[in-house]
Amino acid sequence: MNSSPRQEPDIPLAEKLFDELRRRTADGPGVTRESYGAGEQAAHDLVAETGRTLGLEVETDHVGNTYVTLPGRERFAPKIIVGSHMDSVPQGGNFDGAAGVVSGLAALSGLLRTGVTPARDISVMAVRAEEGCWFPETWLGSRMALGNLPADIFDQLRRIDTGLTLAEHMADCGFDPQTVREGAPCLDPAKIACFLEVHIEQGPVLAAEGFPIGIVQAIMGGPRYRDARILGTYAHAGGAPRMYRHDTVAALGQFITEVNAFWKELERDGRHTVFTFGTVATDPALHSFSRVPGEVRFCLDARGCDDASVRSIRETVASLARTVEQQHGVSFAFGLDSGPAVLPMDEGLKDLLAVIAERRGVPFKKMSSGAGHDAGAFIECGVPTAMLFIRNENGSHNPNEAMDLSDFAEATRVLTDFLVEYR
Amino acid sequence: MNSSPRQEPDIPLAEKLFDELRRRTADGPGVTRESYGAGEQAAHDLVAETGRTLGLEVETDHVGNTYVTLPGRERFAPKIIVGSHMDSVPQGGNFDGAAGVVSGLAALSGLLRTGVTPARDISVMAVRAEEGCWFPETWLGSRMALGNLPADIFDQLRRIDTGLTLAEHMADCGFDPQTVREGAPCLDPAKIACFLEVHIEQGPVLAAEGFPIGIVQAIMGGPRYRDARILGTYAHAGGAPRMYRHDTVAALGQFITEVNAFWKELERDGRHTVFTFGTVATDPALHSFSRVPGEVRFCLDARGCDDASVRSIRETVASLARTVEQQHGVSFAFGLDSGPAVLPMDEGLKDLLAVIAERRGVPFKKMSSGAGHDAGAFIECGVPTAMLFIRNENGSHNPNEAMDLSDFAEATRVLTDFLVEYR
Repeated sequence: MNSSPRQEPDIPLAEKLFDELRRRTADGPGVTRESYGAGEQAAHDLVAETGRTLGLEVETDHVGNTYVTLPGRERFAPKIIVGSHMDSVPQGGNFDGAAGVVSGLAALSGLLRTGVTPARDISVMAVRAEEGCWFPETWLGSRMALGNLPADIFDQLRRIDTGLTLAEHMADCGFDPQTVREGAPCLDPAKIACFLEVHIEQGPVLAAEGFPIGIVQAIMGGPRYRDARILGTYAHAGGAPRMYRHDTVAALGQFITEVNAFWKELERDGRHTVFTFGTVATDPALHSFSRVPGEVRFCLDARGCDDASVRSIRETVASLARTVEQQHGVSFAFGLDSGPAVLPMDEGLKDLLAVIAERRGVPFKKMSSGAGHDAGAFIECGVPTAMLFIRNENGSHNPNEAMDLSDFAEATRVLTDFLVEYR
Repeated sequence: MNSSPRQEPDIPLAEKLFDELRRRTADGPGVTRESYGAGEQAAHDLVAETGRTLGLEVETDHVGNTYVTLPGRERFAPKIIVGSHMDSVPQGGNFDGAAGVVSGLAALSGLLRTGVTPARDISVMAVRAEEGCWFPETWLGSRMALGNLPADIFDQLRRIDTGLTLAEHMADCGFDPQTVREGAPCLDPAKIACFLEVHIEQGPVLAAEGFPIGIVQAIMGGPRYRDARILGTYAHAGGAPRMYRHDTVAALGQFITEVNAFWKELERDGRHTVFTFGTVATDPALHSFSRVPGEVRFCLDARGCDDASVRSIRETVASLARTVEQQHGVSFAFGLDSGPAVLPMDEGLKDLLAVIAERRGVPFKKMSSGAGHDAGAFIECGVPTAMLFIRNENGSHNPNEAMDLSDFAEATRVLTDFLVEYR
């Protein structure tokens, strides 16, 4: 294998694929590619057609993930997988997920044109059902492929728009729910050398700071309280003076303020974290403008980049709650903590990506991913994993995603070199 | 008229009336006397029966308020009205409202026994439909009696449990909605010397501070924002760092905290106020544990005891909102301010009550009423008005109201003397 002739990805192919994807799955101003539905299937069909047109091997596993493979010199060596998902949120953007698969295909087409035969097989994996909006679980396609989805969850998941189970939707699409139920994987982690995911950044950092790409250091983790409550006492708004109240909303206001103050402290110490109170709600059956609220529900989602930060978050949040309890005469019930662990990227892969980006002259930012990604499913199974973010304006999960093709090309150049240089 | 023989109220009658009221309107552990419904009617029937048994004049006006009158020496002089309401919230307490009417009847019975003929007529008025829980308006009976309910509101009000209009319920009970629609009053403010209302305290202050009664200085007023919102931007919880957020719940948390800090300041300055965020809610159609909330709704009800406090509250709340807007990149939309004005009690009447209480050796607290009362409807029409609160534990609007008959007797003694001594 010769890495000195500078291989280039097939960006015109990528441009054509983005246009065709948008055309096939357009829904109002955005695109809709529902997990195990028509939109997602159309996207997978395009991936398979592209693989066949390029003369590459095309396979579909028993849960419906599509693989387009460029054979390597050592076909039995653990392979490289480049993957991301093809489903989208309803009326979402064209690039969230798809950009990673298109990037992989553009890289393989580029390698074919340069006449490079890689050391080992490289598969572009188009993953099913990553978004959590269709079934109330994320990373389904990758977790099922790795045999890492508990069977009892599997049979409980119903698609939010149809009410049908995941098994029913899979069977409808011609795939095999029974094999999943038995826990059989499609992929053996021991046979995967590494997993690479290219994905648009879902936040504004790269755009704001002027970097075309980011090299992800970790997928953030931390406590997640989806059903937390504060309990106090309902009272007459006019009749109950401050000192006699057990006011849950006053308590929540103070708690939110103190958690945000803690966040600022962490930032001052250079520790990247995020804290989100995504929902707050007094009880519509009992609340009133003229009643001191005796109960309020909220979600708190907190994330840090390393285990030490997450430990500190858990401890401080609990301690702030105790202070607020004492000051307001209320009690907190945090409920189940369904928060994920921090999932660190592989050191060697991150370093290689950084070396390549520097050599290519592509400015990059080392950053964490606040959101989860299919990459997380591979890290959970012990596969060495890395991610590249592409600059993107206006966030994701909406039709206004704004990824420049030139930034996509930079990321795909780094990916292409990586595929050649990885040993 | 001779005021030196110490007249005493008929407390055994009061005790009997409370028992009978509870018996006739019991509903589980509490009582239910729905406005213009069977429970309220049963209570009015008992008032009328009691008046007739005592040999007093009994009348019902065209909206269904019941009057029991002890004739005075000068029948054409403006009369004294002692009143409160007979309706209750669903499964409410036995004393909220009824205590004031029973107190008036016990006073009249006491005067009859002592052989006192008052200088002017004294009417005990049992008022209809004071509670805002049945029809979405308060003080209906007293406002209609005074010709002070706008006709357009009148025809829109529907009872929350039946869906029928106020006019339909009034007609069902045998009263005359058409007269109300034409704005005709039953009472002429010029013919009312003063209005007195005895009512249980709906808060914990008298119990906590050890006073059997309170002399009310004013019904508090202030801004009331029933449909306020903060508008920001939805964003991915993981992908959006703090500096890039327009987080409405973080903004609301800070706003609540700062409003409460302002409240503490006012208290330190000796200015009695209350601030209640009775409801908070992110949008169930758009919120998620993993989404920075781009909108949150809330109610803010703030009350002060005098116009200067209320002005200061309005100004400071607006100014705090502007600060929070700047710090969080959000905007506040307060919506309609439906807050009532401060309704001050009559100075002369308050002074007379205080003189009598001191002479009787009844400890009292000068205090404001955070809640509205029928008394407010009379103040709005320019009738000199006063209120006495009776110590009560466990708040009101629930079956656990705990008013001691001995405290009730103290309040009724002060009322009885007042009726004799008022000139």
